[in-house]
Amino acid sequence: MSVLPKSVENVINEFSKLPGVGPKSAARMTYHFLRSPNKDATRLGEALMDMDSKTKFCNSCFNVTDKDICDICSSPSRDHSTICIVEEPLDVVAFENSAVFNGLYFVLGGVISPAEGVTASELRFDELGKRVISTINESVKKIELIVATNPSLEGEATASYIQDMFSKYIKEGKIHVSRLAMGLPTGADLEYADRLTLKKALEGRRDI
Amino acid sequence: MSVLPKSVENVINEFSKLPGVGPKSAARMTYHFLRSPNKDATRLGEALMDMDSKTKFCNSCFNVTDKDICDICSSPSRDHSTICIVEEPLDVVAFENSAVFNGLYFVLGGVISPAEGVTASELRFDELGKRVISTINESVKKIELIVATNPSLEGEATASYIQDMFSKYIKEGKIHVSRLAMGLPTGADLEYADRLTLKKALEGRRDI
Repeated sequence: MSVLPKSVENVINEFSKLPGVGPKSAARMTYHFLRSPNKDATRLGEALMDMDSKTKFCNSCFNVTDKDICDICSSPSRDHSTICIVEEPLDVVAFENSAVFNGLYFVLGGVISPAEGVTASELRFDELGKRVISTINESVKKIELIVATNPSLEGEATASYIQDMFSKYIKEGKIHVSRLAMGLPTGADLEYADRLTLKKALEGRRDI
Repeated sequence: MSVLPKSVENVINEFSKLPGVGPKSAARMTYHFLRSPNKDATRLGEALMDMDSKTKFCNSCFNVTDKDICDICSSPSRDHSTICIVEEPLDVVAFENSAVFNGLYFVLGGVISPAEGVTASELRFDELGKRVISTINESVKKIELIVATNPSLEGEATASYIQDMFSKYIKEGKIHVSRLAMGLPTGADLEYADRLTLKKALEGRRDI
């Protein structure tokens, strides 16, 4: 005899599939809804189904949007000659929230990671190639690609892959590929910085 | 201009209301669904709405169930003269999963906690009183109440409150109130046990 009604077990089961949520947290979340008198579960349920039916990927940058071409890609006030290549839609949110970038984005969908079985063919390199080359042919003569993958081995490998992809255009001066700076984050304590961060900070040192 | 479609923001917003989920984790959970191609969001959404419409509290023990009287309360094979009083439905799950108890339960809905503004009137003491007294009058002559609130100050205060509630019946020998043992948990390292646990373990020592 199971203690829990089937409908409750279903919810725990679905919550457990979320990243970083174990069976215990999933049960705690589920019971939170059972305690709350305001039909919160129904509200989350409706929001989820609404999201599933309305959202899609932007045809140009593959960020999450509810339009064919997202607001960023279709904005005339943004710099269409600079494309920031990120791993995930959340990275776009991080850039936009900090309001430090006025170009466009391209969401790769991950990084090349042999350890996790992610090969180049599973990422949006074809779409990136088409978009960049059509941009050069149509409107912008020179384009800068800022590779903003995470500062990990996989992120570096992916950056190199992109550099190789466009080597012909880079030689012709039509594409310039750059990489986000690596070094000490603001507020960091040098004493606790890891070896690689210190190495990168030293290599990338600038005149004052 | 918001980066995220409204439907996505709604989901992040609803997830943030869950206990232990901050805005960052809420966003990560939401994006997990946007990445997953299997309509997982719809499945969780449907499960939540199904749960909200089907579950209710057992009229006798106030555990979560999909019946008027839950399977435990209506089972003839369980000991109806022992009632384990717990804070939350999850505590029932913990007992049932460990299969160490064959009596009935009563879910209080929390503990008395002046610090968090939870007074006795917000818990199910009235319902507990009615249930216990009707059990004595109807069928069982002597009933044991095992107070299984958490071993915290609030849990102890709640246990005392229950003891006081039934003082008349306790004197008459109709109700016996006990409390879960406190002491060292299995596998604990005595070296790291806190002062209060050691004190309780010493007070509750047993002959071997």
